[in-house]
Amino acid sequence: MPVHRATAFAPATVANVGPGFDVFGFALDKPGDTVEAWRIEKKGVRLVEVTGDDGKLTRETDKNVASAVAGRMLRGAAAKFGVAVSLHKGLPLGSGLGSSSASAVAAALAVNAILDRPYAQDELLEFARYGEKVACGAAHVDNVAPALYGGFVVIVRQDPPEVVRLQCPKGWRAVVVHPHFELSTRRARAVLPRTVPLSRVTANVAGAAAAVAAVMGGDLASLGRALTREAIVTRARAGLIPGFKEVGEAAMAAGAAGFSISGAGPSIFALTDGDRRATLVGAKMVAAWRRLGIAADLYVSRVGAPGARLLGDKRS
Amino acid sequence: MPVHRATAFAPATVANVGPGFDVFGFALDKPGDTVEAWRIEKKGVRLVEVTGDDGKLTRETDKNVASAVAGRMLRGAAAKFGVAVSLHKGLPLGSGLGSSSASAVAAALAVNAILDRPYAQDELLEFARYGEKVACGAAHVDNVAPALYGGFVVIVRQDPPEVVRLQCPKGWRAVVVHPHFELSTRRARAVLPRTVPLSRVTANVAGAAAAVAAVMGGDLASLGRALTREAIVTRARAGLIPGFKEVGEAAMAAGAAGFSISGAGPSIFALTDGDRRATLVGAKMVAAWRRLGIAADLYVSRVGAPGARLLGDKRS
Repeated sequence: MPVHRATAFAPATVANVGPGFDVFGFALDKPGDTVEAWRIEKKGVRLVEVTGDDGKLTRETDKNVASAVAGRMLRGAAAKFGVAVSLHKGLPLGSGLGSSSASAVAAALAVNAILDRPYAQDELLEFARYGEKVACGAAHVDNVAPALYGGFVVIVRQDPPEVVRLQCPKGWRAVVVHPHFELSTRRARAVLPRTVPLSRVTANVAGAAAAVAAVMGGDLASLGRALTREAIVTRARAGLIPGFKEVGEAAMAAGAAGFSISGAGPSIFALTDGDRRATLVGAKMVAAWRRLGIAADLYVSRVGAPGARLLGDKRS
Repeated sequence: MPVHRATAFAPATVANVGPGFDVFGFALDKPGDTVEAWRIEKKGVRLVEVTGDDGKLTRETDKNVASAVAGRMLRGAAAKFGVAVSLHKGLPLGSGLGSSSASAVAAALAVNAILDRPYAQDELLEFARYGEKVACGAAHVDNVAPALYGGFVVIVRQDPPEVVRLQCPKGWRAVVVHPHFELSTRRARAVLPRTVPLSRVTANVAGAAAAVAAVMGGDLASLGRALTREAIVTRARAGLIPGFKEVGEAAMAAGAAGFSISGAGPSIFALTDGDRRATLVGAKMVAAWRRLGIAADLYVSRVGAPGARLLGDKRS
């Protein structure tokens, strides 16, 4: 029996991760986006509903990430039916938590189920990457890959994507704090230097190498140091995020191993061990922003949680 | 009984290792330098002999690497006696195999034995680093650290040194080919770009991250790809090494996983698995240089061999 209706969830992700600009990313447990897809008689894609975005996302079928991904997948599979799609945003927009990637990956997973799974996981990565391009203009995989695969990923190459998947120790926690202001990826990209002095390249390479060794060796303190020392991207972007210094220092004072900007920001994440410490670190980070008059949401998660998954499907 | 005479060996090392410019290094089994040190009544250091260098190295006590390191160690320990030093070069000069580092590390180990080991290993690293500075003007640790510690090292920070030590699978082989021409480190540094486009930084960071994951995960093919793709330092220096392309291609055609420049060159190393394949790869690399009229020496070694060690000491 073919699948008539499928629901998929894809998690928020932290990309860049200090020295791993455009290279590292890891999945969070939550928040995340959910996409429902079901068969319809009329060929093509119908975007039925978008919830949770306060009406901010486009409803145009070929511009909305979820329906754009669905359309491309349908065309690729030469389906004899159409697909209706509903997108439920659990992820804040413009937060630096991989909002468009979560929508793209959830859509890819749900629509693949509807089509009776013609596509392998690596092909789903390509479709999700297309969704990222529709949303942002750039087909980066540093949010898409961890949202799909889960874990802590190293993007060895963007095109064609080559991804190494690592697992972090189970007790590690990402404390992610999302302040209530938006920072466009475009603006965050605009402040990046176009060229970098060679000495600083070496420092970044060393930091990234140390970070991988720390993840694989289970050395949280070393990973934390590698994050916090990054001096190309974080330095350029910190000025765009009021409170970056204060929130990071609050995290460190509460015992975090390190902190940095999540993706293009403005969310900030800190790394620590165990739920108890994570709760304390999170409270201090939120309080630091509150002192600056900025409200913020707190998410505590494993570092490198599982990736996207089907929540259910219905055969007829 | 105090030690009166000690002999120490320190191995050649491959630094940079593709994307790990100034960050990665690993020890070879051979060649290496040997330093003999023994107590003398007169305070201070006496450089008795240097062999194996065709008379090219300075015999001035405070400029020769081995005696300069010995002098600094004596002063640091406030020794009541002097030390005589003989340096036996097994390593070719200006080869990109960490010649001065091997001398510095062997001297540090031998003299520490004579002084009854007042210094811990991390302090020996500092003394050896001083020797590197005497020799080259720059106190880099990317050859010194693997020569002292052995294994595959990641230099997280140069000053103060912070080093992560990794182990490679036992079957991995480094095939190192040293052509009979010298390339000064100064000239090799002069061709490096002073600034690097951000996109190329990302590629290098990705390569270094992939390399660490490959070493720790035992994935030789992935390490080989990471080496060969490096596009900042190798690209700049390849033009200084006649035959770089031909020798590298010969290695790959013989089944190597990847190749790159050893240190600042002109030696080239390739990575492969097992002695049999290594011998074949080495023969093809030497032949490629021979076709260009360049003689070359071949060294086959473990990747990340053991570091410096005492060969013997004598108590009175």
